[in-house]
Formats: sequence, structure tokens, C-alpha cells
Amino acid sequence: MQATMTAQRVQRPFGEMLTLFEEHFKTLQLPAQPETLYGSIEYICSIGGKRVRPVLCLMANELFTELKDDAFRAGSAIELFHTFSLVHDDIMDRAPIRRGMPTIHARYGEPTAILAGDLLLIHAYGNLGSISHCCKDQIIELFSSTASGICEGQQIDMDFEAMPIWKVRYEDYLEMVILKTSILLAASLQIGAILAGASEADQHHLYEFGKYVGVAFQIQDDYLDVFGSDEKFGKQCGGDIKSNKKTFLLLKAFELASARQRRQLETLMATDHQDKVMEMTRLYEECRVGEWARNQKRYFHQLAFSHLDKMLLPASAKRPLTELADWLLAREY
Amino acid sequence: MQATMTAQRVQRPFGEMLTLFEEHFKTLQLPAQPETLYGSIEYICSIGGKRVRPVLCLMANELFTELKDDAFRAGSAIELFHTFSLVHDDIMDRAPIRRGMPTIHARYGEPTAILAGDLLLIHAYGNLGSISHCCKDQIIELFSSTASGICEGQQIDMDFEAMPIWKVRYEDYLEMVILKTSILLAASLQIGAILAGASEADQHHLYEFGKYVGVAFQIQDDYLDVFGSDEKFGKQCGGDIKSNKKTFLLLKAFELASARQRRQLETLMATDHQDKVMEMTRLYEECRVGEWARNQKRYFHQLAFSHLDKMLLPASAKRPLTELADWLLAREY
Repeated sequence: MQATMTAQRVQRPFGEMLTLFEEHFKTLQLPAQPETLYGSIEYICSIGGKRVRPVLCLMANELFTELKDDAFRAGSAIELFHTFSLVHDDIMDRAPIRRGMPTIHARYGEPTAILAGDLLLIHAYGNLGSISHCCKDQIIELFSSTASGICEGQQIDMDFEAMPIWKVRYEDYLEMVILKTSILLAASLQIGAILAGASEADQHHLYEFGKYVGVAFQIQDDYLDVFGSDEKFGKQCGGDIKSNKKTFLLLKAFELASARQRRQLETLMATDHQDKVMEMTRLYEECRVGEWARNQKRYFHQLAFSHLDKMLLPASAKRPLTELADWLLAREY
Repeated sequence: MQATMTAQRVQRPFGEMLTLFEEHFKTLQLPAQPETLYGSIEYICSIGGKRVRPVLCLMANELFTELKDDAFRAGSAIELFHTFSLVHDDIMDRAPIRRGMPTIHARYGEPTAILAGDLLLIHAYGNLGSISHCCKDQIIELFSSTASGICEGQQIDMDFEAMPIWKVRYEDYLEMVILKTSILLAASLQIGAILAGASEADQHHLYEFGKYVGVAFQIQDDYLDVFGSDEKFGKQCGGDIKSNKKTFLLLKAFELASARQRRQLETLMATDHQDKVMEMTRLYEECRVGEWARNQKRYFHQLAFSHLDKMLLPASAKRPLTELADWLLAREY
């Protein structure tokens, strides 16, 4: 009987899940007053984003069961948390623009942005609290440890930015990226799976899948900043180079560079010359970090898929997840 | 049998409860890394504070039952939340000093202070999550609505600061103070009572008791800034006047003032003259706001006690709470 039900169920693709999630997310009621505060929250929630994390939660849920209301509650908590972290990160990074629009602190001032972030975090927990599933405690614990990890990742990132490049080890940098970028994707999937009553093994494989998709995505992002075309990338290339941001590519370039090339990298980093981006890109090419990055991205992409493969489900059921990962990682080299 | 047990139990006074709470609070384990982040949290937690809120939670708990482990968990969550709100408020208010020591943002920089606050909030929820009582959901809901209210209160306070004084209504100001100062005291008591299985009526009376003690305390604080002596107040008097801070006294002075006095108040507020504090204090005396404030404080103090009176418990059981309120509100006029 259960086999028949599984066979009849069709796993929805990203677009369809997104529509379902948006419909639910719009129904969340926030107070109207004080207008400054809740207006700023409505503003940041309305300018959107891809909603990848809550959709991952829904997809993981539908892998094992009919889609549950609790998955929407958890998905909302995840999206509110993600928005909280963007709002506070943008203050810390002094970023004026997010998703093509002014950031909250740029538009409403920093004090309101701090409070808006705080309220988003409180409402994230409020949504978790409305889950009726018996594993609610386990979910809140996973959510909290993920939330702590993301804050730690942001601090480690800031610590790295203040360190000389040769002091940052690649392994530590990778660990930071996993905290800052990957574990929320991973936890979103695991929470969806927990709410579906999935086995611990399947929860683990989904977690690892999300984790490595996140790493591959970040490598791609760093790569495109250097080697992407402006139009396709959607933002101006070379931004990371101009600001001396520590990226996978810069760290690896230092590792692969000869003594002469290393001196050139350091000299370039100390300048604001108009040819800086071009010169740095040339050095990256000399050190073959572009090739390295393409290989690394492929490696993590495959590592992610190897975890999906280990789950005893028909390939058709996993298709929405593989398609989503392929889509996220299909941006042009 | 139960009556005998109640008779045997002795409700501990503030000092004793404080020691018990500090012992528990010290055992909370935080990670060591990243050191910047957790070091800043340890710093702010170690410079203390009166721990009034968690002790209120414990006292309310012991009013009805043997002191429960869950009350310590809830008390820790409350203290972590309170610390979170101080850390973020200090950033918003650009305050360099808290409890005689540099604030987190002054010592560790603003980005770390934002993250430290975020982590304190996340760990507050973590402590709530460890409660084993069957009413945990109700407690988390009360905690979250209280947390939202406090953030709203901070925003309303900032909105008021940006408004001309005549636009701020006394009732709205009182409502803001209740959000910003009172509801956490009130909720701390109610949470302790819920964990003891107290009746809804008793929960309500404890909540109202905490709320009105909070209002009386804020009126006293505003009063002492003007009429206190520097030594006894522990900080320099007149700070609110110098910064044109909207306080109970300033709002009431505008209400009670004649047209001539109101013009004088406005003129004084527009200056930085060295006699500003003295002149303003003289005007306050002319308008008799000092007398009004003493009466208002007494009114709210009594209103708080009227709610304790309505609880069907022996006076001896309530003594620690009445003594604590009297101590908080006994600072010299």
C-alpha cells in the first residue's frame, strides 16, 4: 500500500514549490506598529531572493511523504532566519545594495536595521514554535546550532579579512565557508526530512548533499567574480580583486604561486591601480587557479550527488533536487 | 499533606536566590572559538548586573513549589536575552560605558557586538529549549511575544526621540516604557509561575506586579537624574537634561507648564548653556513635576502591591518579592 502511494506521488520541481512557498510566506502576519520597524521588515521580505532554503526544506519533505504543513512553518522560519542574517551582515559589511535595492540600514538607518534583524530572528523562532510534529525539539536544536554556526562563520570571515593572506590556511577558509554558506542549506534539507520521518541515514545524506552544493556554489561565485562576463554574472566582475577580498581563488593563487609571483600578488594587492583587476587576473591565469577552481567545483558538485545516490529512492523522486543543484551550479564559466 | 509542605518551605530572599542563580549561570558552557566572539560574550556576561529578572523567575517559582531546575533554565534564557538587548541597545544609543565598563562595541568593534548580541539571543532560545516542563510551548510563546515587544519599545523610543516634545503623548510614552522596561520583569515572574503550575489568576497578578514595579522604577530613575545626589545616584545627575532626553519629567513638565514656562523650557532645550541643568531643574520645581513624580512612583508601587495582595498566599511567602520591590524602589528622593 505504501509503495503504491509513493509511486503515485510526484515530486514537484523548484518553480512549483517556490509558488507554494510564496503563497504561504505571504500569509504570515506581522503587526503594523511601529511602522518604521515593521515597514522595514516588510520591505526586505518583499524584495525577495530565490527562496532556495525553504524550497529545499519542502523538497526534502516531499521526498518521503505528502507535503506537510509543518514543512511550510519550518521553511518560513528558515527564510526569516536567512533574511535576519543578510540584514545584520549587510550592516557589518557596510553594504549599500542587496538584490539591486538599498539595504535596510541604507534606507531606514542602522538602529532600525539592527532591530529589524532581531525581530526577524525572534519571528523565525516563533514559526518554529508553531510546528506540531513530535520532533519539534530536535528541529529547534538543529536550527539553533546552525544559527550559532552561521554567526561564528561570519566572525571567522571578519577575522580572516583582518589577517595577512599567508596566515589563512585553505582548510580553515573552507571550514568558514561551510559555516557561513553551507550549513543552512544542509539544515534546511535535514529539517524537511525530519518532518517527513526520514531515517537518520537519509537525513545525513541530504545534509551532506546541501553542504557540498553550498561549497561548490561559493567556489563558482568566487570564480565568476574573476572570470565571468559582467552581463551573465549580473554584477560587475573584479569586485573581490579590487577590495582584496580573501576568496578561494586568492588563497589558492598564493599557494600555487612561485616566489616571484607571490611578490607580484602582494604588490598588486597593495595598489589601487586601474589595471589591478587585469593584472591580477593574468597572474591567476599564470598560476592556473581558474582551472583549479573549475575542478574543485566539479569535485564538490559530484561529492554532493554521491550522497543523493546513496539514498534508496527512485531517481525520479530525486530529480527536483538534482535539477535544482544543476541549475544553481550551471552558471557560465 | 500539601499544606504541611507549604508551611515547611521557606521562600528565599533576593541575596540567597542570586547566589543560587549565579552558580547555575556560571556552569553554562559556550564554545571557545572564535575567540573574538565568545570572548566578548564572556566579557559582557561577567561584568554582571543585578540579575533581577532571573531571580524574579526563581522567586515566582518558589512561591508555589520547590524550586525547579526548569526555573534555572528559564532564568538563564531571560538573563541571556536581557544581555542581548543591552548589547544591541548600546550600539543603537552609541553608549561607550555599561556598568562602569566599556560596552562590547566600544571594546570589540560594532560588527562583533552585533554578532555577540545575535548569539546571546540564539542561546537564550537554546536554554528555553532545554526546559522539560509540559508548558514549554506556552513559555516560548510568552518569551517571544515579550522579546518582540521589547524590540518594538526600543523603536518607539527612538521614534519619540526624533519627534518634537509636544507631539509625544504621555499615554504613549508610558506604553513605550512598559514595553521597553516592564514586560520582561513581568514575563520573568509569569514564567516562574507557569513552571510551578500556578493558576492563571496568580500568573496574571504576578505579571501585573512586575509590570508596575517596572514603571515605578523608571519614574524613579528619571526623577533621580534631576533631583538625586550624584553620590547616591551613582552617576552624574542632569545627563537626561543635557541631552534633551524625553523622560516622564520632561513630558509632564510640558503638560503642567504655563505658556510662559513652556517657552522657557523650549529655549533651554535649544541651548547647551552651562546653567542648563540648574535652570531646567528650577523650572521643574516651578511646575512641581518633582512632587508629581514622587506621587506617580508611589501610585505604581502601590498598584503593584495591590496585585500581590490579591494572591491567596500567606504574607510571609510573598515577603521576598515585597522586599525586593521595596529595595528597588527605595532609592533616595
